[in-house]
Amino acid sequence: MVKRNPNLAKLQSSYFFLEIAKRKKEFLLKNPNAKIISLGIGDTTLPLTTHIAGAMTDAVKKLSHTKTYTGYGDEQGLTSLREKIAKVIYCGMVSGEEVFVSDGAKPDTGRLQVLFGSDAKIAVQDPSYPVYVDSAVILGQTGLLDGKTRQFGNIIYLPCTPKNKFFPQLDPAKDADVIYFCSPNNPTGAVATKNQLKELVDFAKKNKSILVVDTAYSQFISDRSLPRSIYEIDGAKEVAIEISSFSKPIGFTGVRLGWTVIPNDLCYDDGTQVRKDWNRITTTIFNGASNISQAGGLAALDPKGRKEMGKTISYYMENARILRLVLQKKGYEVVGGDNAPYLWVHMKGMTSWDAFTLLLEKAHITTTPGSGFGPSGEGFLRLSSFGQRAHVLEAAKRLEKVL
Amino acid sequence: MVKRNPNLAKLQSSYFFLEIAKRKKEFLLKNPNAKIISLGIGDTTLPLTTHIAGAMTDAVKKLSHTKTYTGYGDEQGLTSLREKIAKVIYCGMVSGEEVFVSDGAKPDTGRLQVLFGSDAKIAVQDPSYPVYVDSAVILGQTGLLDGKTRQFGNIIYLPCTPKNKFFPQLDPAKDADVIYFCSPNNPTGAVATKNQLKELVDFAKKNKSILVVDTAYSQFISDRSLPRSIYEIDGAKEVAIEISSFSKPIGFTGVRLGWTVIPNDLCYDDGTQVRKDWNRITTTIFNGASNISQAGGLAALDPKGRKEMGKTISYYMENARILRLVLQKKGYEVVGGDNAPYLWVHMKGMTSWDAFTLLLEKAHITTTPGSGFGPSGEGFLRLSSFGQRAHVLEAAKRLEKVL
Repeated sequence: MVKRNPNLAKLQSSYFFLEIAKRKKEFLLKNPNAKIISLGIGDTTLPLTTHIAGAMTDAVKKLSHTKTYTGYGDEQGLTSLREKIAKVIYCGMVSGEEVFVSDGAKPDTGRLQVLFGSDAKIAVQDPSYPVYVDSAVILGQTGLLDGKTRQFGNIIYLPCTPKNKFFPQLDPAKDADVIYFCSPNNPTGAVATKNQLKELVDFAKKNKSILVVDTAYSQFISDRSLPRSIYEIDGAKEVAIEISSFSKPIGFTGVRLGWTVIPNDLCYDDGTQVRKDWNRITTTIFNGASNISQAGGLAALDPKGRKEMGKTISYYMENARILRLVLQKKGYEVVGGDNAPYLWVHMKGMTSWDAFTLLLEKAHITTTPGSGFGPSGEGFLRLSSFGQRAHVLEAAKRLEKVL
Repeated sequence: MVKRNPNLAKLQSSYFFLEIAKRKKEFLLKNPNAKIISLGIGDTTLPLTTHIAGAMTDAVKKLSHTKTYTGYGDEQGLTSLREKIAKVIYCGMVSGEEVFVSDGAKPDTGRLQVLFGSDAKIAVQDPSYPVYVDSAVILGQTGLLDGKTRQFGNIIYLPCTPKNKFFPQLDPAKDADVIYFCSPNNPTGAVATKNQLKELVDFAKKNKSILVVDTAYSQFISDRSLPRSIYEIDGAKEVAIEISSFSKPIGFTGVRLGWTVIPNDLCYDDGTQVRKDWNRITTTIFNGASNISQAGGLAALDPKGRKEMGKTISYYMENARILRLVLQKKGYEVVGGDNAPYLWVHMKGMTSWDAFTLLLEKAHITTTPGSGFGPSGEGFLRLSSFGQRAHVLEAAKRLEKVL
């Protein structure tokens, strides 16, 4: 028989959100009447807004009539949507042809790994969104998992801890081909300042690395002094790719829509535009996001859609404020929840899984153990503010009682 | 700067559908009043049916209300859709858990290459859908392109020609890890018989290879003696993966929905289920097809949806019949167009690109040059029957005049 791809064998345990689901299920089997509130996975709960839903209904209607029906769209996305993202999200800092519409940041992360190939050496923040590392393992960029450190060989991990205020010391990444950076950060909720992003861009320029900056949560930044895009930094277009998403700000987690920016100025050492190879990958192993989802994305960037998006975000950020308050009141150190929808809670000496179990069993609240995002996440829990208000208020009450 | 992924450098020219678009554009610049009819790319033109559009509108409505809103779905697809595909398309030959819903056959082909990894040795039919080869090149499974043969090193090409009635001699593939096979075939329109598929399954079993069978056009088979799925062959579940799609039978080319079947019985030499690794890939670098598209897919498999699907297919197959008749009347050898929506026309000694140019310039018809699908496609044109009836009738008139 055919040999198994050895890279897949390196992935020891299941994607850890599945592990959480399993533990929750086991708890519910023993406690069938428990009313569990999820502050775990960052899954949206607010419905689609009227304007966006209307645009998608219209899109379906258009597809139902011969004269307005369209089949395949460009794999890179509707030109109108690419240009609108460039204009509305990036205020013209990038052009429409540099924006590639996708079915989300996660699939685009996978395709980016295909772009870089198995010889790329990557650096990631620790803790980080698990998909950067897992996709690198699948593509063969890494060595084996070290059972002790729970880290893979040939990946550079950049610890983000209270000591460095969750912005990493960059030096260890000087040999990295690709540095993944996420701001607002998932899971820590930390938002990089303009100076920090400038440090990152300068570092990548000096060491000739490519930055992949994940800004899936940038719309949650309310502090106007904080940058929402890496392209606010001079020279970033020569070194940085940006991945982003409609999932959280407009509730498209199930509808699927995101984008990736690859600037024309970003080149390999032989002068080839990275954008050119990305275009080839997009046209070869992707076939575009759903045209209905794209109609929704267009509406979201209208003045009306923007206003509705603002309301959705305010709702979730009020949730974050409520959770943040109760945790701080109880003496916990909390990062995030101000300009990011995640709260990163230092659990006072408990391990992450112990803290997870405590809250599951005593408060019937599911959270995400910080250790699942990397060794530097040990001792933390990630709390999501994407719940419904009533549940968040109830969760806050329970936390006040249990902690 | 970072080194370019050498695998991407191997891809010499652009995906050839782009080349066709370029030539058409150049012709239109010189002949701005030409009314070009496309028999080229297999893009659907019939609108969504009432039942399917209604289901998608309902899905949008549900997403617009708090009580019925849902966020992330399972990356593998809605359980109800997986089970319905197993029941309706496969009559229970496979189970729902063996069906993975995707955003289409093309992206799933790319993910399958990620599954197999860069050490896999693949065999393809020649001619074949270019994505199998191009994605293999991108993943590093191949050597360089041979400028003379236009074939990549380390890929086994299985010629499909009039001599073997478009079913390949399999022997050269005995060392292949993965054999790609497409029936009804894109581009040749040939449909494998039950005996031929049995030969294929037996061959894969004997040589311990995995079959990847692309059945994106299986719903176009009207001859009940022809198999619509590889799983109609005894023992196929031990050796075969099936990729399929909603794109063509229900006009979802832009809506994006497909699926892949990985049977539980399919294992690597170490006993690991292939399905297990596929599940990991799906959950790590994919995030599910749009929930609105999936609602459409569910409706398409209802009795009402099935009836509407039948009408859509009959319409396209009547187009195919019209084109087939005029070509045969003019003395051309034609394969396909009976149980497949493509016609594969032997152009009587012309090269494919010469024939393409002839029809573009004299009949203002775009087609797809057979040579773009591989060396054995030289001298052929692929004609698509996915146009609107009026255009197909007009195209038939022009062909009658010009050929």
